[in-house]
Amino acid sequence: MRELKDRILADGRNMGGGILNVNSFVNHQVDCGLMVRIGQQLASRFAADEANKVLTAEISGIAPALEVGAALEVPVVFARKIWSITMPPDSYERMVPSHTKGTMVQLIVAREFLTADDKVLIVDDFLASGKTIGALASLVEESGAALVGIGAVIEKSFEGGRELLAHLDVPIESVVIIESMDDGRIVFR
Amino acid sequence: MRELKDRILADGRNMGGGILNVNSFVNHQVDCGLMVRIGQQLASRFAADEANKVLTAEISGIAPALEVGAALEVPVVFARKIWSITMPPDSYERMVPSHTKGTMVQLIVAREFLTADDKVLIVDDFLASGKTIGALASLVEESGAALVGIGAVIEKSFEGGRELLAHLDVPIESVVIIESMDDGRIVFR
Repeated sequence: MRELKDRILADGRNMGGGILNVNSFVNHQVDCGLMVRIGQQLASRFAADEANKVLTAEISGIAPALEVGAALEVPVVFARKIWSITMPPDSYERMVPSHTKGTMVQLIVAREFLTADDKVLIVDDFLASGKTIGALASLVEESGAALVGIGAVIEKSFEGGRELLAHLDVPIESVVIIESMDDGRIVFR
Repeated sequence: MRELKDRILADGRNMGGGILNVNSFVNHQVDCGLMVRIGQQLASRFAADEANKVLTAEISGIAPALEVGAALEVPVVFARKIWSITMPPDSYERMVPSHTKGTMVQLIVAREFLTADDKVLIVDDFLASGKTIGALASLVEESGAALVGIGAVIEKSFEGGRELLAHLDVPIESVVIIESMDDGRIVFR
């Protein structure tokens, strides 16, 4: 997707250590029009898979997942990271490391929203180490739902997430793939 | 908005203590089509105010804010609640109590995304005590931006938020207003 590559080159910030700061259009400020087009792009790649639900992780996954869900006309479930009084105690739960916060975070999904009848497409903003998406896939498996695919806005292929997720044996689609961020540059595949 | 009232009566859960659980269509699972229509409804009420930016708080505010932003064709900024290495140390910051988590949470906005040139519409899922929206309005004021309005998906008028925010002297619009949740019932205005 040319538009997203151009935007990353114009407004993304290579902070070193493999961290790409896209706070000005994805992660803190969101370009809504761009996000709608990203959602349509990802939805089109999974149109044949008949997902009835999109699963993501709060916080930054919500915007792209919502636009994929709107394009596919299916609901979005976002895994919560903090327990609240509205979350049932028997909810599915996983712990994953956060890349940008330096801590472990929880992913929590109420059982009623992932069932054996569901066909689930996982969507997230980044595919990097693959640990967050892997944890979401593990929740899907525990629920008995079928995982039909994984979609990411920005893949950093040098962090090995695609390899980590290969055993899931589902299509993995990224809107753009970054091969290298060495020496302050951003190199797309 | 008849559709939202009907959905709250069908799928919302009055948990007592003024807590309305809308996890099945707003706060954990999102009905994307409904959220698009909510966004259009709120956008239409503020169409004349020429906002160039929508401001919300992660997490539950993101979905409605994104659809308001898409309808108005302006970007959305969501205040972050956790510091990360992509957030500048001089970001605007406020502490507010969380209604459903029982703790204080931070609201953090990088200075570059709120400036004296901005006309800001605040959007959130709930208008209850008004403390979160009040804190967002305080960030807007500190930045020198102009606040043009406040939009909420669900207002609980019995918690006094509208009165708390009255001094801001901007239009406050809610898609639905709940007057009472006593005795397990949900009474709309």
